[in-house]
Amino acid sequence: MWCSSWSGSRISCTCWWCTLCSRGSSIMWRSALLWRTFFTTAVVAVVLRALIEFCRKGKCGLFGQGGLIMFDLSSNVPSYGTQDLIAIIILGVIGGVFGGLFNFLLDRILRVYSIINERGAPSKILLTITISIITSACSYGLPWLAACSPCPVGSMEECPTIGRSGNFKSFQCPPGHYNGLASLFFNTNDDAIRNLFSRGTENEFHMSSLFVFFIAIYCLGLVTYGIAVPSGLFIPVILAGATYGRIVGTLLGPMSDIDPGLFALLGAASFLGGTMRMTVSVCVILLELTNELHMLPLVMLVLLISKTIADCFNKGVYDQIVVMKGLPFMEAHAEPYMRHLVASDVVSGPLISFSGVEKVGNIVHALRITGHNGFPVVDEPPVSEAPELVGLVLRSHVLVLLSGRNFMKEKVKTSGSFVLRRFGAFDFAKPGSGKGMKIEDLDFTEEEMEMYVDLHPITNTSPYTVVETMSLAKAAVLFRALGLRHLLVVPKTPGRFPIVGILTRHDLMPEHIHGLFPNLRKSH
Amino acid sequence: MWCSSWSGSRISCTCWWCTLCSRGSSIMWRSALLWRTFFTTAVVAVVLRALIEFCRKGKCGLFGQGGLIMFDLSSNVPSYGTQDLIAIIILGVIGGVFGGLFNFLLDRILRVYSIINERGAPSKILLTITISIITSACSYGLPWLAACSPCPVGSMEECPTIGRSGNFKSFQCPPGHYNGLASLFFNTNDDAIRNLFSRGTENEFHMSSLFVFFIAIYCLGLVTYGIAVPSGLFIPVILAGATYGRIVGTLLGPMSDIDPGLFALLGAASFLGGTMRMTVSVCVILLELTNELHMLPLVMLVLLISKTIADCFNKGVYDQIVVMKGLPFMEAHAEPYMRHLVASDVVSGPLISFSGVEKVGNIVHALRITGHNGFPVVDEPPVSEAPELVGLVLRSHVLVLLSGRNFMKEKVKTSGSFVLRRFGAFDFAKPGSGKGMKIEDLDFTEEEMEMYVDLHPITNTSPYTVVETMSLAKAAVLFRALGLRHLLVVPKTPGRFPIVGILTRHDLMPEHIHGLFPNLRKSH
Repeated sequence: MWCSSWSGSRISCTCWWCTLCSRGSSIMWRSALLWRTFFTTAVVAVVLRALIEFCRKGKCGLFGQGGLIMFDLSSNVPSYGTQDLIAIIILGVIGGVFGGLFNFLLDRILRVYSIINERGAPSKILLTITISIITSACSYGLPWLAACSPCPVGSMEECPTIGRSGNFKSFQCPPGHYNGLASLFFNTNDDAIRNLFSRGTENEFHMSSLFVFFIAIYCLGLVTYGIAVPSGLFIPVILAGATYGRIVGTLLGPMSDIDPGLFALLGAASFLGGTMRMTVSVCVILLELTNELHMLPLVMLVLLISKTIADCFNKGVYDQIVVMKGLPFMEAHAEPYMRHLVASDVVSGPLISFSGVEKVGNIVHALRITGHNGFPVVDEPPVSEAPELVGLVLRSHVLVLLSGRNFMKEKVKTSGSFVLRRFGAFDFAKPGSGKGMKIEDLDFTEEEMEMYVDLHPITNTSPYTVVETMSLAKAAVLFRALGLRHLLVVPKTPGRFPIVGILTRHDLMPEHIHGLFPNLRKSH
Repeated sequence: MWCSSWSGSRISCTCWWCTLCSRGSSIMWRSALLWRTFFTTAVVAVVLRALIEFCRKGKCGLFGQGGLIMFDLSSNVPSYGTQDLIAIIILGVIGGVFGGLFNFLLDRILRVYSIINERGAPSKILLTITISIITSACSYGLPWLAACSPCPVGSMEECPTIGRSGNFKSFQCPPGHYNGLASLFFNTNDDAIRNLFSRGTENEFHMSSLFVFFIAIYCLGLVTYGIAVPSGLFIPVILAGATYGRIVGTLLGPMSDIDPGLFALLGAASFLGGTMRMTVSVCVILLELTNELHMLPLVMLVLLISKTIADCFNKGVYDQIVVMKGLPFMEAHAEPYMRHLVASDVVSGPLISFSGVEKVGNIVHALRITGHNGFPVVDEPPVSEAPELVGLVLRSHVLVLLSGRNFMKEKVKTSGSFVLRRFGAFDFAKPGSGKGMKIEDLDFTEEEMEMYVDLHPITNTSPYTVVETMSLAKAAVLFRALGLRHLLVVPKTPGRFPIVGILTRHDLMPEHIHGLFPNLRKSH
């Protein structure tokens, strides 16, 4: 997920842990996939290291810089006392509040953006241009506010620098001086983070510069996500968090043994915990970025605190976006009130089922008036002795079958060989991937509409089923654990129509259930 | 799993990743559990660090030593060339062969041990004493073979040392000399590993000492696991692997830029990959032990190679032990041949079901003649109109109900309130944990055997069911994904007895299926 949000960083290829630990995928993770991920990552890491070695000799221009670890901190953590721990706890609490506020504001802004973006391409482009201009104006305008500082004496680095890279930007300053705010703005985000994380540079940035930079980056991060450019949330949040941590560290400088650079790392952790709420992944990501195992206990503590604080206000930023997009995301566990319901309680809508050998007109009509993606198939006399559930057909497969126009005059069961003759192995696979045809693309004559088609060859005869009296909680667990899209509900007593309904993800959403049973909400 | 196998090491408390990544638990992992694990680990890590800080001032005696990272290597990895990569690949290949050989020999030895251990406590104790004597004899006898070396000039450490800790053991050597083999044997395993991993100590150990130590530790590791003491496999394997790597590193010394200490780390990785076959976990464990993110690409490469090589010979050591113990472990994926079978094909044994209101004698008889842990309950006339599946009762619950002796003269359905009156909330929970009563503990009079008991109140009315024509592959996936113990198979057509059979883990084992359908093996 987040790999793509880093631009131009080499670390992205080794982030196999984050894939492993991220929340959604942990459910469907397979051991074979783990092994393949590990294999590719190992190969990439070894090859990349070899190339970096090769490029370090200066043969590759700008590509020769950096290493596998993005923000390598020299591993020399000082001991910390009780007052430091208290400071870190307060840092975590405030970071959590800022993170929760970020999520709240982002939610509001994204709602506005989605209205703008829905108006079409011109609005989208206009919005993007506006944000670009604001970003440029901030980046170029704000450094004028900062005062010039004299270059540090005895520094290993060039000061001031004029080129693309380098820590001390001259901007409007006289020779021998640099502008701290410009050094942060006129750098790549990666270099700015590295600057903020660096040790032994207590006086590199003025307090006022850090403050202005923090507000600017926090607000720019908010307004940039959601416009029509491929941007992510990780780097802006880390940058804002690092600046915040550096401010706290500089403020507490006289009282604490911990370097402001380490405070910046903890600040970044607190913001990540407050917005993303993914403790383990963030921990691993920070470890990979900094190679700082010694800091792990403090990072974990800060993450815990900021996540707990921010959880009081709202949900994680990705959860919010899932809700906003209207995606029916099912939680891994069943809600407690589901134990008081049974599967047939939440089945909704009129059930539309097909006969094993069905009239083309009926099928076309059903596909036109509903958006269902799966239909139960039931054999009825004279094809079978009594009504009997055959299985489930998918809309996309029915469309492919109809497009073959292999219809019959009589309602009789066939051997199914015509499907094998007429269609190849991939004809059904491709439309199933979601890019298939639509019912509107197909036209049938009056005569064809009165003919019959045999659905047996394309019916899935082993759909997962539950009895109508099954506890809804257990049905939901089954649905989620197997990653289903349709779950057939069958009757308990014989002699009735052999299917009661179909459960889909939408039927299991809390909103739908609470709509059907308003009293549930009160009872628990 | 492995946390308990480290003795006296502080790192064990931060190994939450290994729990996360270990194979078995990845299936049933829940997001709430992750959060709780993270929480406890963070608290432990912070408290522990504070205590270590406190103890470093010398107030806690022997507890004051060490840190959170067990084998902290100074992070200064040299660049490596093509010849080094080739050396590392060969190291991985040989490590994989040694790992596979270890598994093969361990399997044979454990089979012998299990025969000895089954003879009772005296045999167990005798075996343990024998192994202890062999270990002591090796540890004390072998160092006599090694020659004395003069103490290194300008070393920071005391040499020779006499106490418990320290790297240079004097043993039989004159003053100013030390015995390298004794230094390895007369140390804790942790310190021995730290010695082997240490940098800039090319000449600390004689080649012959390393060779003798490697053979001794490899063999002792093999014979120690499986005796009646709480011992693990990780430390012996790491120790043998580190010695092997150090041997290779010393041999290649003149040709390679890489330090023998790093070769020792890679050797340990190759042995772990060759025996455990858990690539990701081992990678994380080695990272935690050494804080060496720079070495990760090489460690991954070695793990890949050694696992691939060893996989050609046999299965991982834990898989072997699972098979040897006779535990029916289900793979996460269904076998391909299962697609050609349906659920009712593998249902075995005569089906024993109870009526909703059943005669006590029938229940007692069924419990005595079978070892089944679950029985389907079917309502029959006159209790219901037609035979109808009510659900599933567990043996342990039936036993608790019988012990209540609340029997009736007539075959009538009750309100179930007597269960609530007679039993508390935990009466059914405790026997369900496996430490409950047995049917042999219960005695009934002739009169009681002729009476009836109502099973409805203790029946699980929402068991997971599959239709008899369900593909066996899909039934197996359902069984595994939900972690079931019983899966009811119901008939497809109405008018038959409402239950066809019960699937258990044993019915889904490849051995059982191949026993029923010998031709399957040939066909694929």
